[in-house]
Amino acid sequence: MSKKIHAKRGGFTLPAQAGMDDIVLDLAKRWGADAFRDSDGTVLSDSIMELGWDIYSTICLIRADQKWNSSHPEDCQQKYLYSAPQAAREATIKIDIMARYSNEQFKIDEVHDCKKYWEVVNRTTGQIVPVSDWDYADGIVTVNNCAKWNIYVVNFLVYQIWETTSMYNHITNNWDRPHQSGIDPRKPETRKHIARFLDKWLATHPNTDWVRFTSMAYQFPIITNQKHQTLYQDWYGYLDCMSAQALDEFEEKKGYRLSPNDIVENGYFNSTDRVPTRAYLDWIEFVHEFLVEFSGDCVKQVHDAGKKAIMFYCDHHIGTEPYKPKFQQIGFDGIVGPCINGREVRRIADIPGELVKELRLYPYFFPVNLTNEPSFKEGGDPVGECKRYWMWIRRAMLRRLVHRIGYGGYLDLAVKFPEFIDYVEAQSKEYYKITENTNFTPVENAPFKVAILNAWGKARSWGFDQSWPLGGITESLSGLPFDIEWLSFDDIRENGIAKDIGVIINMGVAGTSWSGGHHWKDPRIITAIRQWVDAGGGFLGVIDPAASEHGGAYYQLWDILGVQKEIGLSNGCRKVIPTDITKGHFIAADLAGTNPSLGKHVQKIYPCLESTQIIAKDDEGSVTIAANDYGKGRGVYLAGFELGSEQNRLLQRAIWYAAGREDEMTQKWFSSNIETEIAGFPRTGKYIVINNSYEPQTTTITDRDGNEKTVWLEANASKWFDFDGNEI
Amino acid sequence: MSKKIHAKRGGFTLPAQAGMDDIVLDLAKRWGADAFRDSDGTVLSDSIMELGWDIYSTICLIRADQKWNSSHPEDCQQKYLYSAPQAAREATIKIDIMARYSNEQFKIDEVHDCKKYWEVVNRTTGQIVPVSDWDYADGIVTVNNCAKWNIYVVNFLVYQIWETTSMYNHITNNWDRPHQSGIDPRKPETRKHIARFLDKWLATHPNTDWVRFTSMAYQFPIITNQKHQTLYQDWYGYLDCMSAQALDEFEEKKGYRLSPNDIVENGYFNSTDRVPTRAYLDWIEFVHEFLVEFSGDCVKQVHDAGKKAIMFYCDHHIGTEPYKPKFQQIGFDGIVGPCINGREVRRIADIPGELVKELRLYPYFFPVNLTNEPSFKEGGDPVGECKRYWMWIRRAMLRRLVHRIGYGGYLDLAVKFPEFIDYVEAQSKEYYKITENTNFTPVENAPFKVAILNAWGKARSWGFDQSWPLGGITESLSGLPFDIEWLSFDDIRENGIAKDIGVIINMGVAGTSWSGGHHWKDPRIITAIRQWVDAGGGFLGVIDPAASEHGGAYYQLWDILGVQKEIGLSNGCRKVIPTDITKGHFIAADLAGTNPSLGKHVQKIYPCLESTQIIAKDDEGSVTIAANDYGKGRGVYLAGFELGSEQNRLLQRAIWYAAGREDEMTQKWFSSNIETEIAGFPRTGKYIVINNSYEPQTTTITDRDGNEKTVWLEANASKWFDFDGNEI
Repeated sequence: MSKKIHAKRGGFTLPAQAGMDDIVLDLAKRWGADAFRDSDGTVLSDSIMELGWDIYSTICLIRADQKWNSSHPEDCQQKYLYSAPQAAREATIKIDIMARYSNEQFKIDEVHDCKKYWEVVNRTTGQIVPVSDWDYADGIVTVNNCAKWNIYVVNFLVYQIWETTSMYNHITNNWDRPHQSGIDPRKPETRKHIARFLDKWLATHPNTDWVRFTSMAYQFPIITNQKHQTLYQDWYGYLDCMSAQALDEFEEKKGYRLSPNDIVENGYFNSTDRVPTRAYLDWIEFVHEFLVEFSGDCVKQVHDAGKKAIMFYCDHHIGTEPYKPKFQQIGFDGIVGPCINGREVRRIADIPGELVKELRLYPYFFPVNLTNEPSFKEGGDPVGECKRYWMWIRRAMLRRLVHRIGYGGYLDLAVKFPEFIDYVEAQSKEYYKITENTNFTPVENAPFKVAILNAWGKARSWGFDQSWPLGGITESLSGLPFDIEWLSFDDIRENGIAKDIGVIINMGVAGTSWSGGHHWKDPRIITAIRQWVDAGGGFLGVIDPAASEHGGAYYQLWDILGVQKEIGLSNGCRKVIPTDITKGHFIAADLAGTNPSLGKHVQKIYPCLESTQIIAKDDEGSVTIAANDYGKGRGVYLAGFELGSEQNRLLQRAIWYAAGREDEMTQKWFSSNIETEIAGFPRTGKYIVINNSYEPQTTTITDRDGNEKTVWLEANASKWFDFDGNEI
Repeated sequence: MSKKIHAKRGGFTLPAQAGMDDIVLDLAKRWGADAFRDSDGTVLSDSIMELGWDIYSTICLIRADQKWNSSHPEDCQQKYLYSAPQAAREATIKIDIMARYSNEQFKIDEVHDCKKYWEVVNRTTGQIVPVSDWDYADGIVTVNNCAKWNIYVVNFLVYQIWETTSMYNHITNNWDRPHQSGIDPRKPETRKHIARFLDKWLATHPNTDWVRFTSMAYQFPIITNQKHQTLYQDWYGYLDCMSAQALDEFEEKKGYRLSPNDIVENGYFNSTDRVPTRAYLDWIEFVHEFLVEFSGDCVKQVHDAGKKAIMFYCDHHIGTEPYKPKFQQIGFDGIVGPCINGREVRRIADIPGELVKELRLYPYFFPVNLTNEPSFKEGGDPVGECKRYWMWIRRAMLRRLVHRIGYGGYLDLAVKFPEFIDYVEAQSKEYYKITENTNFTPVENAPFKVAILNAWGKARSWGFDQSWPLGGITESLSGLPFDIEWLSFDDIRENGIAKDIGVIINMGVAGTSWSGGHHWKDPRIITAIRQWVDAGGGFLGVIDPAASEHGGAYYQLWDILGVQKEIGLSNGCRKVIPTDITKGHFIAADLAGTNPSLGKHVQKIYPCLESTQIIAKDDEGSVTIAANDYGKGRGVYLAGFELGSEQNRLLQRAIWYAAGREDEMTQKWFSSNIETEIAGFPRTGKYIVINNSYEPQTTTITDRDGNEKTVWLEANASKWFDFDGNEI
């Protein structure tokens, strides 16, 4: 066996496949691959594995031994579901609790005492029905003594008999194989078995260098119905980590018992868009603590076998929480994330700790893409897809670089598209050039930090997801020249606002975790931000900032933002302040008009202070961009956001302006043409200019010392220069 | 003196003016006038008054004797205002309480003990600041011990030193006269003086037949700032009926004390768009009780003088409440209302009791109209205005007729527009034809009632006012062939839903009094409607029906409506039910496409039941019209509404369909062409077909017996027929 490379920084992971050795070797050369991986449904040939390159082998512990799983149905993974809400037409009603769910995916838990673990809820009154008033038999809950015409729901436990990733791959590829189940490592016997299984697996995979855990135990929830339609999905959702045992252990550990509705949450399932409750945050922490312990044990086994452990940050990632401090205790050597855009670059790249960080780029080598359109099949355009994603990804990488890239899926599909093979060759070369010219050293960003404030903070870094895959403002921020922090309301309550933060951004729809909901009624939050802005901070509100109807105000920080929203409750209060556009405003300097597209922006926004500067408004006169001075600080408001070059620049300007440092924006590392961007790396003395557009562009850049220079770029191209301005 | 006509039914009131006798007499003939009136700022000549026609004389008791008012400043009308919200930058802040208000309109009450009648509110915490922590002097409230960066507001009493109508007329006409004040009849000495004054006035106005009270005591609020801009306006608002005395009397009568913030309501001022609080409803009732007593005394004086009393239902109407039962105790002989549209026809015409009901039509003979555009001056188009209004008014009159029409303002302005004079001649002739052919007998409407459910019920009949002057769905309903009832949530709680109601409409923006806000969390409301629809009722929801986030639902009656709204909290819950249009739906039969304009309709509406019938959706796939079966009843949803012929017909169909009686719609009194309408009067045996459009129209009508007939109408025209189909 040759010496192992152990996944060099600046490398490429290629999804190989048995029976394609020549092609694999050719591609390895063209794409610069230094590691090979299998995928769900593929295996590597012995010949490839013995070549001496790094071998990644995927393992999904919870479904790896279907034989064990089948013989231990009581250890199958569980979940709370709720029956379709039903109005009581009579005093006694019968509820077919599984009616809205897939029988292939779920099976009612008839093992545990339903009177202990289930709950019948009167959703009209919010009351729990006494257990003496209902009974369960044969899939039906019969509820007696109903209040007529009230809505009743059963929150009940199921076993998930078809594991989610297996189900997704199965359905997407029209497989005709047995359904796989997922087992719960919280169960003592199963946990012991998994440990034994992993040891055996390690022993029987001598060529494997990297154990690629896909992932650890609990999948983010995808709940389907009989038609295989997804009823519910939440990438961060803590639903699939449930079991009767976990509930009991939670009670022991936290001192109180979760009710089923703490998890079902009247059908919202504690979606990440919801402002999290204390109970749900406790549940997350409880599951995380288990996962840290369990994953730590697995990683130790891997290390003891002389191999390295890398986690796929998707699928069964729930509980691992890479942004929480305890994640570091697990001891992973690397982490790999699927990546379609800049936000997903940053979600991996910004993870704390000395891990090898790798991106599995899109398109996945699958017949269809994630939105179920043709990809690697007739009618597909994998090159177009790949290039579009790369334009989003490249600019984010220049702000925070990952160590490796790669692809996944079925190579036999990809090789049918030779132009795609060519494109990936060019793409990987561009990536290698970035790694070489930056040597993973920091880019020079603005001299202040930008904090994004929401109800989740760091734990959901880059998790704000208005409209995947493109997203909105976070996508833009992923490639802008600012250091980004994620801040929760608890962070402010506990630690105040750090001195190095120049601008706080609060963005999102009113009432969501992103905007913050009831947190804005807390005087501690409001006063901390007022005081901080007054002393010179900048507050940038997007969509519905600080939104929570309270004390006669809807946007609680109207006095900073200078605008307010009419939600129909104060029509009698006339909006008397004129909405004349402030001419020549710094923020508007690169806008083509006074009504830039901000996507589906919110409306009925009006100035509420004479001091408000109106920068843009829509056709109906609703303010879309505004700014306001507040003491030594500033507020800036954007009624929406849409990704685009004009909007990127708008956001860049809005941030510099909010920080009160707008004079500095063009002093260094500035590119005049909004279709282009520049990034400088002082430690290597090199900078890059990129063209995000599909047309050639000419731009005047300002370098580190304030010198200007004209740069011409082909469509989509990039150019590197040394600090003397010589192209390299 | 000739015999008095006493305002015959089917008459016309002409605003005369001294010095124009010949013109007045000519117009009286051409317009069919049988009564003359003065206006604010005009007087009638003696010669006109002595002609023997009815004479209406306006009197505004509260500003009639400015001498008394000036010498009794302590009896001047009062009001609560709030200071501009101010963040506490220091522990002690100074608040200039009048900063946002007009000094011409208001003067701080320095007579009554501010520590008793004012209040300093911390709007951030909602707490009232202890009186020991603040002081008032010279227009400034100094607040000590402030919580830094909290928002502080002073709710304080003022005297309104410039009476609102006087101020409006003064500013609009650029008058250069002394400002008039309004006096409060609640004050004992002033009340006695008013009685004496009225007696004297009656004695000195021998030619007056009708005392036209404009109106009784308290104006609806118009709060202005230093620039004469309106800061707040609410046609139904109970702000100007305030005084220190009233507050004390309220406490005595109702057993609890109102706080200033019960009235100021954090700046919302209990706008009619707000779901009224119990305290505000008590306050309304308290003021109403006083007004009934005071007005009753005034009317008795008028009657004792052998004259008749008519009230102008505008301006100082607050407290009279014509839709409340006690109004009848006052004893008015007539009521007159300003009228620009069908809704305003019905607001007068539907008032209970045997009053003479008169409309003062628009345009008012003023240089500018109510939206401050030129009317009777250069650039004005009074004929165009008048015709537009008449097209809205006529169809409503055919559903509920008033006894008289008329105009107001300055005749010398109107006569400069001879085409306007001609148009009013034609208009009045068309009105007389209606009175003659109907003889004020009822029109034949659908055989079931339509109830409009909101937080106000009957008390605010026809008060829903989305976008004056055109309005939305209520404007359409004002002329549709349905008997309309106004229902409050309390009505349902107390009396259930009456048997003769076929359809309940709930319409309005979420959280407003019109939609209903928190009332939808009350199981008594929800269950009563579910039971009633299940038994065959129809529930028509418009904009945000039954909207109040509770128990996992936003539209509480989603199970009846078949649709739900995504407000950003359940993005994780996928919307799996297809939005395919149900072909050939009864409701859609007269729509040109599947995406009719419904104004600024709400979005993110999705079907939540498999049974939902999608009738229309917008370009983004958001459902705009849907229907659903529920037991023996039906739900229908409209995401918005906009006045137009297509939408009129849509609403008509939606109501018939919701009632489950759609087969009957075309069986009688139906006109096929959506630009036209038909109304039949069985007691006189006549029917009318009207053309609401500005083009000639041909339509096929179905008469009472189901016979069809083709009718051709000129633009804007109407034709009368007897029941044999002969034109008359």
